[in-house]
Amino acid sequence: MKKNNDNKKYNVAIAGATGAVGIKMIDVLEKRHFPINNLKLLASAGSIGKKIAYKENEILIEKLTKDSFKGVDIALFSAGASVSREFIPAAVSSGCIAIDNSSAYRNDENVPLVIPEINPGDVLQHNGIVSNPNCTTAIMLTVLNSVYKYSRIKKIIVSSYQSVSGAGQKGIYELEDQIKSISSGNKIKISKFPHQIAYNIIPHIDVFTENGYTKEEMKMLYETRKILHDEKISVSATCVRVPVKSVHSMAVTFITEKNISVKQILDLLSDSQGVTVMDEPLKNAYPMPINAEGKFNCFAGRIRKDLAFKNAVSMWISGDQLLKGAALNAVQIAELLVKYKILKRDHG
Amino acid sequence: MKKNNDNKKYNVAIAGATGAVGIKMIDVLEKRHFPINNLKLLASAGSIGKKIAYKENEILIEKLTKDSFKGVDIALFSAGASVSREFIPAAVSSGCIAIDNSSAYRNDENVPLVIPEINPGDVLQHNGIVSNPNCTTAIMLTVLNSVYKYSRIKKIIVSSYQSVSGAGQKGIYELEDQIKSISSGNKIKISKFPHQIAYNIIPHIDVFTENGYTKEEMKMLYETRKILHDEKISVSATCVRVPVKSVHSMAVTFITEKNISVKQILDLLSDSQGVTVMDEPLKNAYPMPINAEGKFNCFAGRIRKDLAFKNAVSMWISGDQLLKGAALNAVQIAELLVKYKILKRDHG
Repeated sequence: MKKNNDNKKYNVAIAGATGAVGIKMIDVLEKRHFPINNLKLLASAGSIGKKIAYKENEILIEKLTKDSFKGVDIALFSAGASVSREFIPAAVSSGCIAIDNSSAYRNDENVPLVIPEINPGDVLQHNGIVSNPNCTTAIMLTVLNSVYKYSRIKKIIVSSYQSVSGAGQKGIYELEDQIKSISSGNKIKISKFPHQIAYNIIPHIDVFTENGYTKEEMKMLYETRKILHDEKISVSATCVRVPVKSVHSMAVTFITEKNISVKQILDLLSDSQGVTVMDEPLKNAYPMPINAEGKFNCFAGRIRKDLAFKNAVSMWISGDQLLKGAALNAVQIAELLVKYKILKRDHG
Repeated sequence: MKKNNDNKKYNVAIAGATGAVGIKMIDVLEKRHFPINNLKLLASAGSIGKKIAYKENEILIEKLTKDSFKGVDIALFSAGASVSREFIPAAVSSGCIAIDNSSAYRNDENVPLVIPEINPGDVLQHNGIVSNPNCTTAIMLTVLNSVYKYSRIKKIIVSSYQSVSGAGQKGIYELEDQIKSISSGNKIKISKFPHQIAYNIIPHIDVFTENGYTKEEMKMLYETRKILHDEKISVSATCVRVPVKSVHSMAVTFITEKNISVKQILDLLSDSQGVTVMDEPLKNAYPMPINAEGKFNCFAGRIRKDLAFKNAVSMWISGDQLLKGAALNAVQIAELLVKYKILKRDHG
């Protein structure tokens, strides 16, 4: 992050610190040298007493309660929507700003939904809460951002290839356990996903809504509109779980207002913050889970004129959904709060 | 198949009998009670002397040579395009009709490309060869056929989720070996695919062409046009390899000339030959590899109005690419040759 001229340091709490995203949040705070005075790691009863390494220290996990946020400046929430709904009001009452990775407040018109590369100024509209977008939306829009700024995008069709860690660490265990069971001829156990995920593809993430789309798919429409401040853009998504451990990929076709060449898109993306272009098909170079895993940037490739529509481009995107799709974006929002000096500590 | 009133039986040869598709061809011939007099199983030198069960017999694998086709009525080829190019002319000279599962002759204007549910009459245009379509195209069009007949489809956008057995039996071994190597901490071996496929997604099948699409993707355009006799239909595809053993799935969005409701599409598909509708999302019922594997029918579900385009519908399709995408469709073409009485044996 940019140098914090005041050398102020902040008290940060992570609710859901032992989850797949919580652990990445700790790691990203350290890697980006976030100015931390005290780091509080909060989790549910099952994890109390465990320790997690942060820099040279080990931090004891504490139980998440409504009193956890006294003296805290920033609370990062990644423990699911119901935990956010239960504890964020208490965190806000304590005077901290909550950055929520769940879907609890994303559609609330009083809560900004922010991708720092796209709509950083929206954090100023906060009323104690800033929402972090859905992982797939965050990755897609980070890539499309510079194209959209050059020429408004009117329509997006996207098919996703989402990894099991989108359902948390237990998603990875379930995939691994099922593969072991199948290879040893044992019956598989199904708990995190609606069906077997090992050697299978499930076109179903989150619950179904009345129009035949899942909530995950509708998030891609609603969140895209909110982040881009564009109520007219259409997004039609098919969100699909694949037997991959981490990184979400997607095939994206979009229609722009202006005609735009592949060369122009390559130039725009090459200059985009948070984006790595990997587009040398003749060298077998294109984004994939194995090269996007653990990376802060989102990867774009296979950029080509769409064959079915005018002013349309198709491309392939991969991004680590635990990072730009969750932990990294949340920490980047925290950095904005520092930059804009809107934290309690900056006032008093 | 329909009863063959003449009770004639035919000599059938399979070139590539030991491959993933060849083995399915033997199985499908038996299951559909194809009227066989003699079944000749042909393969390359490595498999000579092996035996494969057909009904109550074991058939000795013979070496494929240009003399293999004397007295043969129907030659089913599934040993790759170069083998087809080398041996099909000899098979045709011997007086048999070759049904070619490779891409060798699909774009040849003198060779019909046939999905029996869609353009059965095209086999009458044969000059000794009938081509079997690309697996993904065959599955997609079998499902879209009845919709297209009701209202012409103008544009299709499709993203595929293609299993490793699309690259043959060795594709399955490679996936399994890589998973074993990863779980035991050993280095993985890569040979059939351009990258690691275990726990990965590869947006690259067949070779790249100049426009940034792969040949696999361009096949979906060219073959759709040829099968539907519609040079104006646009198909824009992203073909992607996923770590699944068999069955290809795809997210398909299509734009029709007439407005058509989801209910109408459900009715059309429910009456379609070769199609099973599985569309009860609230019961977690939709097509997937685990339920389409080994099935002759293609499965359609998640049928819903597209959110981005007018007169557009999105759906999800899964089909066993070794069956409708290859062996089954080839045997169905053989059944047409019998039905239309155009085989050598029916003339002399």
